[in-house]
Amino acid sequence: MKYIKYPTTEAWATLTTRPVFDNDDLQKTVRIIFDEIRQRGDKILRKYTEIFDRVKIENLNVSKVEFEEAEKLISNELKAAIQLAKCNIAKFHSAQVEAVQMIETTPGVVCWRENRPIEKVGIYIPGGSAPLFSTVLMLGIPAKIAGCTQIVLCTPPNKQSKINPAILYAAQLVGITEVFKVGGIQAIGALTFGTESVPAVYKIFGPGNQFVTAAKQAAQNYGVAIDMPAGPSEVLVIADQTAVPEFVAADLLSQAEHGADSQVLLLTDNEEFIAKTNEALQLQLIALPRKEIAEKALANSKTILLKTIEECMNFSNLYAPEHLILATKNARQLAEKVVNAGSVFIGNYSCESAGDYASGTNHTLPTNGFARNYSGVSLDSFVKKITFQELTKQGIANIGNAIELMAEAEQLVAHKNAVTVRLMVNDK
Amino acid sequence: MKYIKYPTTEAWATLTTRPVFDNDDLQKTVRIIFDEIRQRGDKILRKYTEIFDRVKIENLNVSKVEFEEAEKLISNELKAAIQLAKCNIAKFHSAQVEAVQMIETTPGVVCWRENRPIEKVGIYIPGGSAPLFSTVLMLGIPAKIAGCTQIVLCTPPNKQSKINPAILYAAQLVGITEVFKVGGIQAIGALTFGTESVPAVYKIFGPGNQFVTAAKQAAQNYGVAIDMPAGPSEVLVIADQTAVPEFVAADLLSQAEHGADSQVLLLTDNEEFIAKTNEALQLQLIALPRKEIAEKALANSKTILLKTIEECMNFSNLYAPEHLILATKNARQLAEKVVNAGSVFIGNYSCESAGDYASGTNHTLPTNGFARNYSGVSLDSFVKKITFQELTKQGIANIGNAIELMAEAEQLVAHKNAVTVRLMVNDK
Repeated sequence: MKYIKYPTTEAWATLTTRPVFDNDDLQKTVRIIFDEIRQRGDKILRKYTEIFDRVKIENLNVSKVEFEEAEKLISNELKAAIQLAKCNIAKFHSAQVEAVQMIETTPGVVCWRENRPIEKVGIYIPGGSAPLFSTVLMLGIPAKIAGCTQIVLCTPPNKQSKINPAILYAAQLVGITEVFKVGGIQAIGALTFGTESVPAVYKIFGPGNQFVTAAKQAAQNYGVAIDMPAGPSEVLVIADQTAVPEFVAADLLSQAEHGADSQVLLLTDNEEFIAKTNEALQLQLIALPRKEIAEKALANSKTILLKTIEECMNFSNLYAPEHLILATKNARQLAEKVVNAGSVFIGNYSCESAGDYASGTNHTLPTNGFARNYSGVSLDSFVKKITFQELTKQGIANIGNAIELMAEAEQLVAHKNAVTVRLMVNDK
Repeated sequence: MKYIKYPTTEAWATLTTRPVFDNDDLQKTVRIIFDEIRQRGDKILRKYTEIFDRVKIENLNVSKVEFEEAEKLISNELKAAIQLAKCNIAKFHSAQVEAVQMIETTPGVVCWRENRPIEKVGIYIPGGSAPLFSTVLMLGIPAKIAGCTQIVLCTPPNKQSKINPAILYAAQLVGITEVFKVGGIQAIGALTFGTESVPAVYKIFGPGNQFVTAAKQAAQNYGVAIDMPAGPSEVLVIADQTAVPEFVAADLLSQAEHGADSQVLLLTDNEEFIAKTNEALQLQLIALPRKEIAEKALANSKTILLKTIEECMNFSNLYAPEHLILATKNARQLAEKVVNAGSVFIGNYSCESAGDYASGTNHTLPTNGFARNYSGVSLDSFVKKITFQELTKQGIANIGNAIELMAEAEQLVAHKNAVTVRLMVNDK
């Protein structure tokens, strides 16, 4: 990790900058594949699955038999673990259901909001080295609680035309039945336009590589919403002398193993702590199967020594990390100062892995500085909040004159007139 | 208005389609202006203000004196009306502040969400024929309630270098002090990149013409969030024999006067009602100052006769209107069937103008079918909901094993290890 000692405040702007990727070429590729899918549907999904995933797919949708086979392949221990995670995620997200609150803003003028599910949602689960069945829980559970009527899951098949059994087990556990063997740009295109097999959806969720990210970005141009813009995963740890070097080292490595482009930052006011953490880090690194990936990520990572923990928090708010671990004395009070972050882990026993899997919070979070202006996925992400208003005769009489005056001042006379015709009846 | 009698369900797909605009050329223009602003700041704002608004601007920011002058130009009646609207909007949006709810998902595992304001937000208010000071209220009030620390307002100047006094009055009333005389693409570019005068922001709100819309879309490519994608304004009215033709005609016209591209739909199960409404519409139209605009919009508008009110609601849910007026018997029960809409107006006395100005609900709503997957602006739009979790020793002991199993199954051993190092201490 790069070590930066007492940087000047002027240097912070550079230190908090993310690497920038130019995806113009990617967007061109996306446009070509999208156009093909729009015109020729499933055929094109099969074509690109053969090119990118190197497998010929006959039936794109996962059959009932495949779901049953998958369930048999999962150990009872893993099933219990997944069920525990499901239970906690469901508890946390169910608590986000809002009671309808009727507000009488003026006598006779009642306003309220009601949640309605986004009817059709798509969930993308990457394939590749790590089968992210935990993401099936993180997106499927709130979609079900919200009441989305159609939940479509796309994930790339392996060379044997199969989907990882843990992904299928998690899908059936949360009640997702429409699963399709298609990944990458072609999956996002299918969810955007719909094909003979894959239904079109109104909003697409889920992580992915740069191809998937570019395709999700492009989907927005066709009226489809997405969960949030994406970038490489990140953790920022703020630690003082009360932190445990072995714990912090393990947390930094758990982020670093995600990918060579993972962003890892350690901020501290204690120089001795840095040395101890580096030592623990080297020891733990040796034993990791994804050691090479983690090493690459660490080469770009930063340890920054600052004067105070308050300065560390200011830096963190400027950086706006996806994950923020507070391994300090009085971490709970420090958490009150958080302005920009995706999810915050308080104290020595709150590791990022807890939130990644089973604490109950959602692990789909804003990266790349987007924690400044976006929230992570929650129940809100699967609903629209529709406003309602009901005015009585008395209600329009009470606010009608104000509306008439404002509409006239905005030179919108028909807006005024919609009130006037109602007040005239009132006068009778 | 075009009259469509008992269309087949197959025809609904076409009838609910919006006009599609190709904005490739616009995007090119936006890119050129954005690049210039990025490099040369204020100079470029002045250059395009001269080209597009035909006025030379010296000081881009509105001075204290100009605020004071504006206040004097507003009648006491209009001030009182604006204050009444402010009061109702504040009441409705303040009720959206959520209490923090601590959820213990497992003993020793506590999770919660807290709102944090988006620190820097930009509000765009169009100039042109209608000075939309009501939008200053609709965006400024929730921004203030959320606690946004920097609220920057941009709006184009008139030929005398002035801003409409009602816009300035509304701005100072809600507590916005940073107002800049710049409109169009150049305003959005300034808010995206920042210039010597105009600060850069994290999220941009507000309506605008196709240039502003294209610029807001482009701003997203530079990490700036926007309130929502935009399109022409819309109203859909569902009316039965209990509706009042004069009211419905006035509501249709209040939408039609917005612009030639406004979308206006009337759905009913009663053929007689259509004739009466058309009659009232012709009478009211004659007296409108924006008659020509309204006529153009009406030429593209549709009256659709369907068999039942239930069919009308199904059609509306497929169309997903920005504004939905329910002028029917038992409108409140019918409202329960709404799945896709921006804001709903229930009963004969709930005109769209009420929500546009003073009922308390927000008038910044999803158009163009986006009510299927987006909510209108609310307090939520100005905050991030950050998740927090705090685990005790006992907490990680309770869920640690599940995390270890899941992380291992996802082949993320460092994630597992972050738990293992903590459980080992626990065992001591």
